[in-house]
Amino acid sequence: MKILILGGDGYLGWPTAMHFAARGHEVAVADNLGKRFWEAEMGVTPLFHIPPLQRRVRIWNEMKRGPKPMKLYIGDIAQNHRFVYHLFEDFRPDAVVHYAEQPSAPYSMVSRLQAVSTQVNNVSGTLNVLFAMKRYTPAAHLIKLGTMGEYGTPNIDIEEGWIEIEHKGRKDRMLFPKQPGSFYHLSKVHDSHNIEFACRIWGMRSTDLNQGVVYGMETDETAMHPELLTSFHYDEIFGTALNRFAVQAVAGMPLTVYGAGGQTRGFLNIRDTLQCVELAAMNQAKEGEFRVFNQFTEAFSVMDLAHKVKEAGEALGLNVAIANVENPRIEKEAHYYNPKNTALFSLGLKHHPLTQDVIMGMLKKIMSSRDVIDRATINPTVKWRKS
Amino acid sequence: MKILILGGDGYLGWPTAMHFAARGHEVAVADNLGKRFWEAEMGVTPLFHIPPLQRRVRIWNEMKRGPKPMKLYIGDIAQNHRFVYHLFEDFRPDAVVHYAEQPSAPYSMVSRLQAVSTQVNNVSGTLNVLFAMKRYTPAAHLIKLGTMGEYGTPNIDIEEGWIEIEHKGRKDRMLFPKQPGSFYHLSKVHDSHNIEFACRIWGMRSTDLNQGVVYGMETDETAMHPELLTSFHYDEIFGTALNRFAVQAVAGMPLTVYGAGGQTRGFLNIRDTLQCVELAAMNQAKEGEFRVFNQFTEAFSVMDLAHKVKEAGEALGLNVAIANVENPRIEKEAHYYNPKNTALFSLGLKHHPLTQDVIMGMLKKIMSSRDVIDRATINPTVKWRKS
Repeated sequence: MKILILGGDGYLGWPTAMHFAARGHEVAVADNLGKRFWEAEMGVTPLFHIPPLQRRVRIWNEMKRGPKPMKLYIGDIAQNHRFVYHLFEDFRPDAVVHYAEQPSAPYSMVSRLQAVSTQVNNVSGTLNVLFAMKRYTPAAHLIKLGTMGEYGTPNIDIEEGWIEIEHKGRKDRMLFPKQPGSFYHLSKVHDSHNIEFACRIWGMRSTDLNQGVVYGMETDETAMHPELLTSFHYDEIFGTALNRFAVQAVAGMPLTVYGAGGQTRGFLNIRDTLQCVELAAMNQAKEGEFRVFNQFTEAFSVMDLAHKVKEAGEALGLNVAIANVENPRIEKEAHYYNPKNTALFSLGLKHHPLTQDVIMGMLKKIMSSRDVIDRATINPTVKWRKS
Repeated sequence: MKILILGGDGYLGWPTAMHFAARGHEVAVADNLGKRFWEAEMGVTPLFHIPPLQRRVRIWNEMKRGPKPMKLYIGDIAQNHRFVYHLFEDFRPDAVVHYAEQPSAPYSMVSRLQAVSTQVNNVSGTLNVLFAMKRYTPAAHLIKLGTMGEYGTPNIDIEEGWIEIEHKGRKDRMLFPKQPGSFYHLSKVHDSHNIEFACRIWGMRSTDLNQGVVYGMETDETAMHPELLTSFHYDEIFGTALNRFAVQAVAGMPLTVYGAGGQTRGFLNIRDTLQCVELAAMNQAKEGEFRVFNQFTEAFSVMDLAHKVKEAGEALGLNVAIANVENPRIEKEAHYYNPKNTALFSLGLKHHPLTQDVIMGMLKKIMSSRDVIDRATINPTVKWRKS
């Protein structure tokens, strides 16, 4: 299968590219390297030095693990539609895994500039991909990364993208109503609506993966070579909850739980992201189908998560405190949460549970870079509230 | 009350500005004159020559009907946030009526360029307005024009923006799920989600007016002076159903019903648009409230509408034929349709029904410009379907 990974320089894009290549698929990666600019703008870096994408692709190709060398396209899918058209005309993918978006909720809440640029970037990029697919690869399968954060925390069970609504004696199957929590999450909601429309009117096939919070940094392929690693963030902007807690534990800083910590979210191991994306690709959506999978394996409250990290840290001799800090976000800190995630399991997902061993593995890796942790970038400064 | 009209050069923006000014409000209008560019790009013009906005404002102000002269700001709310910030800092409105968007579904379906520019323009402009309001007029009321087309044609009753969903024994009040029919309609759905978020996190107050198809060209104020008229379109791009049929009847062309004509939509007289917007402004949303009104007065199928125009035309001695043409859009041509519109009536709306007199009045006005009708711009060429 020919698989195009959009956003191949990112935390998940790069491991996904290697994952497919290692399994015999022909892979191309595309990226505008925009994440490296956003990191510079925010003054943060991944914990481990990440070689340029060009170098990682070269190293991968020298290992000769795939049937063909991985192809690399550098360009911007949002600002340069001719780049996107060239990409699809040249590579002609069977499946497209689309990670190529500004990925941070706090970034989108910094100010007007970041809010607007996040939405323009994410929405335009996805529209350009839809038009390029319509033109060059109308039968290809678009696998789009969304987020569980699109749903918010409604007082009813969260279904997988669609819900049968019975209202005043009549019924319809409708898109599940969304209540996203940031301008970033909103951009993903906009994408979902645009993609559903393209499926409806052009007969495109798409799977929207509403992903939970991803943790971890190692996959089978990143472990093959020290320079094939992926971007691991622990800062307030790009660091997700568990990754950030793990670094705080190693740095001897209290784990900063936002507010009461009763916020419950879906989580998954980075290895399971790869498995889920592969399952989606191997079981493609039907012509005209806009299919949604909720992509997480376990749900925890933020406070539960902090306690798990504290326990694992203490088993390694670290002294770990937990601090409830003022919540920079506006979100319910105690709420009903029962999202469905059966679709991917029914396709065969075998998940990696969040065990103490997994957390200890992360902590040990982080300890090897303890000295370079930038403690000034971890605690929240970006606030949702009107200043 | 200080009322800011965004999109004051448009079909509805200009009559709205005069309507408020004539009723003793202090009014400012802003526009980037973008609609005049889009008209040029598509090769279409309004039926009657529309003087520059600057001239119309001057004529209005010379009539001294308002308490203060109407203010005019020329600039782009989507591309120039400093213009938007200046607007709010300088004028400090109590209410903002936001029409300043690319308003055509067919325009948004012309090609990739128009799809992307419509969404970027509409979404960025609204985001800039939200940030400007947060900064300078956080207590002001945003009255945003949406469209009934955001809902599509679900098989359940269409409520006004929100719906109480009962699902597996639990309940929540959620945004009504949308199934918009074009990239333009999608842009309005994106706006609604962004505005709901701003109300939720910043405590802004907003009314989203999901408006039906507007017809007519005359209001109390446009009738005051021959140069105070508003932009009346009959072309495939900017002409709405009834307006287009009326011009076809006068031009001796068959009324082009798209497909079977069973498509049912909400309609309203342009005079009632002004009344509805005024009712929204005089009864403002509460702090933090995202309120939605469905703004139409009567529902008709497209075929019903064609028959009404045919009857009125024949009463005036015109020879009117109806032709079912291939539907350029992708939409259901027979469907359930029961949208609610009680909120505005309960605030006191007294509507102008679509009588034969009303249609005959439109036809007579159009007859006075029969010779300048550009017949080549009326029949549909923009297609929704994958070519």
